[in-house]
Amino acid sequence: MLDLTQLRADTPGADELIHFNNAGASLMPRVVLETVIGHLQREAVLGGYEAAAAASQRLENVYASVARLLNVRPDEIAVVENATRAWDMAFYSLPLRTGDVILTSATEYAGNYIPYLQLQRQRGIEVRIVPNDAAGQVSVQALQAMLADPRVLLISLPIIATNGGPVQPVEVIGTLARAAGVWFLLDACQGVGHLPIDVQKIGCHILSATSRKYLRGPRGVGFLYVERELCAQLEPAFLDLHAATLQTPTHFEIRPGARRFENWECNVAAKLGLGAAVDYALTIGIAPMWARIRRLAEDLRTRLAHIHGVSVCDTGAIKSGIVTFTLDACSAQAVERALAMQTRRINVSRTTVRSTMLDMQARGLQEMVRVSIHAYNSEDEIDALVDAVKSFAREMADVR
Amino acid sequence: MLDLTQLRADTPGADELIHFNNAGASLMPRVVLETVIGHLQREAVLGGYEAAAAASQRLENVYASVARLLNVRPDEIAVVENATRAWDMAFYSLPLRTGDVILTSATEYAGNYIPYLQLQRQRGIEVRIVPNDAAGQVSVQALQAMLADPRVLLISLPIIATNGGPVQPVEVIGTLARAAGVWFLLDACQGVGHLPIDVQKIGCHILSATSRKYLRGPRGVGFLYVERELCAQLEPAFLDLHAATLQTPTHFEIRPGARRFENWECNVAAKLGLGAAVDYALTIGIAPMWARIRRLAEDLRTRLAHIHGVSVCDTGAIKSGIVTFTLDACSAQAVERALAMQTRRINVSRTTVRSTMLDMQARGLQEMVRVSIHAYNSEDEIDALVDAVKSFAREMADVR
Repeated sequence: MLDLTQLRADTPGADELIHFNNAGASLMPRVVLETVIGHLQREAVLGGYEAAAAASQRLENVYASVARLLNVRPDEIAVVENATRAWDMAFYSLPLRTGDVILTSATEYAGNYIPYLQLQRQRGIEVRIVPNDAAGQVSVQALQAMLADPRVLLISLPIIATNGGPVQPVEVIGTLARAAGVWFLLDACQGVGHLPIDVQKIGCHILSATSRKYLRGPRGVGFLYVERELCAQLEPAFLDLHAATLQTPTHFEIRPGARRFENWECNVAAKLGLGAAVDYALTIGIAPMWARIRRLAEDLRTRLAHIHGVSVCDTGAIKSGIVTFTLDACSAQAVERALAMQTRRINVSRTTVRSTMLDMQARGLQEMVRVSIHAYNSEDEIDALVDAVKSFAREMADVR
Repeated sequence: MLDLTQLRADTPGADELIHFNNAGASLMPRVVLETVIGHLQREAVLGGYEAAAAASQRLENVYASVARLLNVRPDEIAVVENATRAWDMAFYSLPLRTGDVILTSATEYAGNYIPYLQLQRQRGIEVRIVPNDAAGQVSVQALQAMLADPRVLLISLPIIATNGGPVQPVEVIGTLARAAGVWFLLDACQGVGHLPIDVQKIGCHILSATSRKYLRGPRGVGFLYVERELCAQLEPAFLDLHAATLQTPTHFEIRPGARRFENWECNVAAKLGLGAAVDYALTIGIAPMWARIRRLAEDLRTRLAHIHGVSVCDTGAIKSGIVTFTLDACSAQAVERALAMQTRRINVSRTTVRSTMLDMQARGLQEMVRVSIHAYNSEDEIDALVDAVKSFAREMADVR
């Protein structure tokens, strides 16, 4: 059972404003903030390397914590600079060649989609979009049919899109990928800390994620899971003297395990902060947080849908904590600004066609307001948001 | 004229211990520490993206500061996760193909040398080592001769090696590179903040550097300079939706300027800390710091050389603030540990054949003690170090 009072007391920002931009970057719990700042202060008085050496066991524990979060082995984890570098290091290291096919979802993030187009141009690979089913999530039937083509080498998609929408049926997708002998790269940027993610159940070969979103860790750190067997076969796209060691002037050896995707430089304070965030989330419990997030999000959707002029945009059989909507004749930015005003202090964000072009174009959308709810958000905050949207919608209607 | 009292008063760690590991990570000045911590605290109460938006002008100023440091244009600067990622993004983006030749120095860092070997294997390029002259620095004469081969496409080397040694004659190298129509990639990791670096005088096409060493900024951030004309021709090895934008579902456009080598995720606190570090260094003055560093380092070399059993290892016509030595029959680690003892609290580091294999093997060295001096280090600290080495050398001699 979650103790909301405690969750909020743990969160220095909870009393300062109403934060519904957890899909951008969540408010850090105090333990994360203090872990990061504490290490920075030790760096200033001990030296950066000396402070890292003193924290070496705690740094090692970060791998164990992340491994526990995902239900994988610590040697399958790399802790890197951010989710983009995690994803990049894995994706660009895959031996994809002319004629190979990547399957992705219509909800794919432009940040991943652009690399597909880059390899299409550079290496002659092909990208195919798995269509959605009636509920708006990846069609399992269509995917199964598309996997019949032996040129398909990789399924790569986000568990939850940056613009909300369905929680993809990743366990079924993973099963199909395994059956077809195809790699499955799961972008879990919006997933970790948001809902339970069990890699053993999903069966993905690669998973990338960030610290700063639903995990509530600091910026400047992310992580990568690569299955042990696949990892041994992959040569990282970039190497350095941490990822590999020079044995002779003409021979290097690549480091065993997923740390081959790291490099020597390390944001130690942020890495410790990531560990603190994972430990905090595991102590609270991801499953009860996910249950609360879904309940709050469903409640918000229902209530927003009753506001005149508001269209809730979310699709999917299982919807996440990301709630998206539009307000008639109002830009998302106008809504965002109105909510952020000093009298309201509500942080939401907007999501545009720029980030998820295929999905947004298919739905005829240019942009949406994005309200991303976390478990520490309160029912009162949902009320305040609904009231604020109502009052802004009324103001706008009056103006017209 | 430097005010040592002020420099030390600006440095929270200066009273805590004696830090001669500035080539690893320097002690941050208070303004850097407070900038980083201040931003983290704002993230905790405003939200990560909201705090970044509030700091947008200051973030923009970081590019101007780094550009001023190097004497280049702000659009030629990318601020990235660390020096390795800066170097990687530039190096792996160069269109090097079968038969192309890279020239490097014997002092090249294994972290860069391994990528040469990787491309040698993957793409059939060739790496050649420019021999040293009698003083131990890159032989300009030999370089000139090697540039006669039209297959040479790139000169890539560090201005100062991780294991000390000469400040390479980069202005002459740059002139030769320009004359030969060859790219010049300068690894300035140990150079920035250490000595004046004027890219207009050097004429390098690419320069990579980190924040945490002689610049005294935080860990978790580095930067890259790419000359405007070259930049426009380079397609980054990795792309995302910051480095490029999706125009249609089949077409992306790469961002103009060096920020094409960045990605969307950003360690905002560390980036602001880098800006504070650069501004601090520019206010103090790099030239007077360099003069002081050289004076202290020369003094230390002379005094160490008089200690029985100590061999000072530095070579080069112009030596840097990195002083290296060995102590007869003692491992570098033993020296490092003896100096770090609670009664002494002197941080030095060691440098091994693992990091600079070619140079160390040529000099018959497995490892050295590395003492890296910054301008805020005092004469008293040099005295303390000399006394400590003397006394440890005596103890060790007595044991034998």
